[in-house]
Amino acid sequence: MNKLHNENDLIRRIEKMFDGPKSKALRLGLGDDAALWQPRPGHETVLTSDWFLEDSHFFREKHPADSVGWKCLARAVSDIAAMGGNPRCFLLSLALPVELAGKWLGGFLLGLRRASRALRCELAGGDTTRRDKVLISITVLGEIRQGRALLRSGAHVGDAIYVSGSLGAAEAGLRELNERKGIAAPTNSALRKHLYPEPRLALGRWLAEQQLATAAMDLSDGLSSDLPRLCAASGVGARLDLAALPIHASVTTRQAQALALHGGDDYELLFTVARRNIAKIPAHFEGLLLTNVGEITRRMRMVVNDAGKLRNLEAGGWDPFRR
Amino acid sequence: MNKLHNENDLIRRIEKMFDGPKSKALRLGLGDDAALWQPRPGHETVLTSDWFLEDSHFFREKHPADSVGWKCLARAVSDIAAMGGNPRCFLLSLALPVELAGKWLGGFLLGLRRASRALRCELAGGDTTRRDKVLISITVLGEIRQGRALLRSGAHVGDAIYVSGSLGAAEAGLRELNERKGIAAPTNSALRKHLYPEPRLALGRWLAEQQLATAAMDLSDGLSSDLPRLCAASGVGARLDLAALPIHASVTTRQAQALALHGGDDYELLFTVARRNIAKIPAHFEGLLLTNVGEITRRMRMVVNDAGKLRNLEAGGWDPFRR
Repeated sequence: MNKLHNENDLIRRIEKMFDGPKSKALRLGLGDDAALWQPRPGHETVLTSDWFLEDSHFFREKHPADSVGWKCLARAVSDIAAMGGNPRCFLLSLALPVELAGKWLGGFLLGLRRASRALRCELAGGDTTRRDKVLISITVLGEIRQGRALLRSGAHVGDAIYVSGSLGAAEAGLRELNERKGIAAPTNSALRKHLYPEPRLALGRWLAEQQLATAAMDLSDGLSSDLPRLCAASGVGARLDLAALPIHASVTTRQAQALALHGGDDYELLFTVARRNIAKIPAHFEGLLLTNVGEITRRMRMVVNDAGKLRNLEAGGWDPFRR
Repeated sequence: MNKLHNENDLIRRIEKMFDGPKSKALRLGLGDDAALWQPRPGHETVLTSDWFLEDSHFFREKHPADSVGWKCLARAVSDIAAMGGNPRCFLLSLALPVELAGKWLGGFLLGLRRASRALRCELAGGDTTRRDKVLISITVLGEIRQGRALLRSGAHVGDAIYVSGSLGAAEAGLRELNERKGIAAPTNSALRKHLYPEPRLALGRWLAEQQLATAAMDLSDGLSSDLPRLCAASGVGARLDLAALPIHASVTTRQAQALALHGGDDYELLFTVARRNIAKIPAHFEGLLLTNVGEITRRMRMVVNDAGKLRNLEAGGWDPFRR
């Protein structure tokens, strides 16, 4: 069925793609006024919503439809990872142009289903309508043991600042995609990171369970934009050591440090660790690099240590409202 | 502050508007990667998302900003009412044109806050971005005692079909608004019903607590579109008695029955009641009219009884994909 005659058709196509065994916690999924979810005793619900809009966050003529499906869920789940939680279910709000109801919708739903399975986050409901551009809003529900969530607000003076993985690759991938013509294939690791980001769920869970992070967030807009948010929430400052930034192997341009500092969409975790616990942070967690990139400071000011010289850190990451 | 310099400004304006005491269940609200919510033991979580898009669901030059704020939340909460649940908190995903960051945003947030207080549904989080049109996606979390939710799927042959309130007023209000120039003031009850709909929370709760409804849903797209959905979910048919339809006092046009049958946006409840329980359904519930408008039938077919003649019911309500 490639043509939509009414909204029920679209809902049925989504239902069909997500057919299969459901968790017992999902008491009622698609097809009623609302979904019913059974929360786990002793757990808090973690709640996040994320926009993913054509021409703002992706381009129809550049991004494969299945990458749009994967990424819209993965980036929302990344917020659950940043809290140390387990994703459970999601709501998909989708506005779709009628001319995309065939192949594009099929590819989109395949990518979304792949992410749903990989991230163990099942479709619970949502809303559909028609629009000239693809509009996506994803809401994810996760769970975390009571009182264990990783907040932005717990960083203390003297804490070490860590990032997971390496930085700048997704931005390098975006630049490469902009230079290419047509739909991008994920032919290298930078493009893969831009198109199919992987939320750091296992790391977030481990940090929360072991109570090792004093504060945490995910890097979605870029380190220079996100670190100030963590510091503002904690009422502290920070010193970043530029030479320590883990730069992705695929980033070979002269602007590698700028990409690592300002590049968005990496979905790595940024977290702080009390000095006494630094020895408990391994160099790698399940194959993922963990790097000490600086320190939390007393003054509510962000500085970069560039070969021994301190300069102010200017937010240079993604902000839809910056002029 | 009327100009936005960055996304943080917008988040701060929203935070400021929703400043004040929070419920204990909302462990963490705006400003982190995700919100934290403490579910009530013995309850299921009711989950729903709703689009509310400029030029699809409302018009900047017709709808007052505070009505956009009220209605985007009220219509999502109506889905919670239809399940018999209590709304608890919501996530606001808002995409905003920069030129609306002043007066319009202020009016919108006032309307949203008024709805949030009236419906006892607090702001827990969301996402913001910039766009040339106002895009809103609202996710509401509600709660209901385990196993008590009103589903669409429980209607049985012989059940009486009921609607709350009266029908067609919101559609009449929309038509009046389309004929007027400029921003509409709610000068009569039809316009008020279109601009500031009231979800039938008390009725939904009562039907769920008393276990009186075999099936229920809210009327958002129009009776002729919504009743077939309830019947399809229940595997039954229905006979609607046209003369019984409660027509809103403000609807005086010759097409009153057509408005009541096909008009959308009323947010009244449609529910079915087993014959043995009909005597327990009062003519008014807390001042709200309850009307028996037909019967669930065996054949999976929708008919209208028009002065003794049966004809097929054609879905004539709102559907964004219908050609």
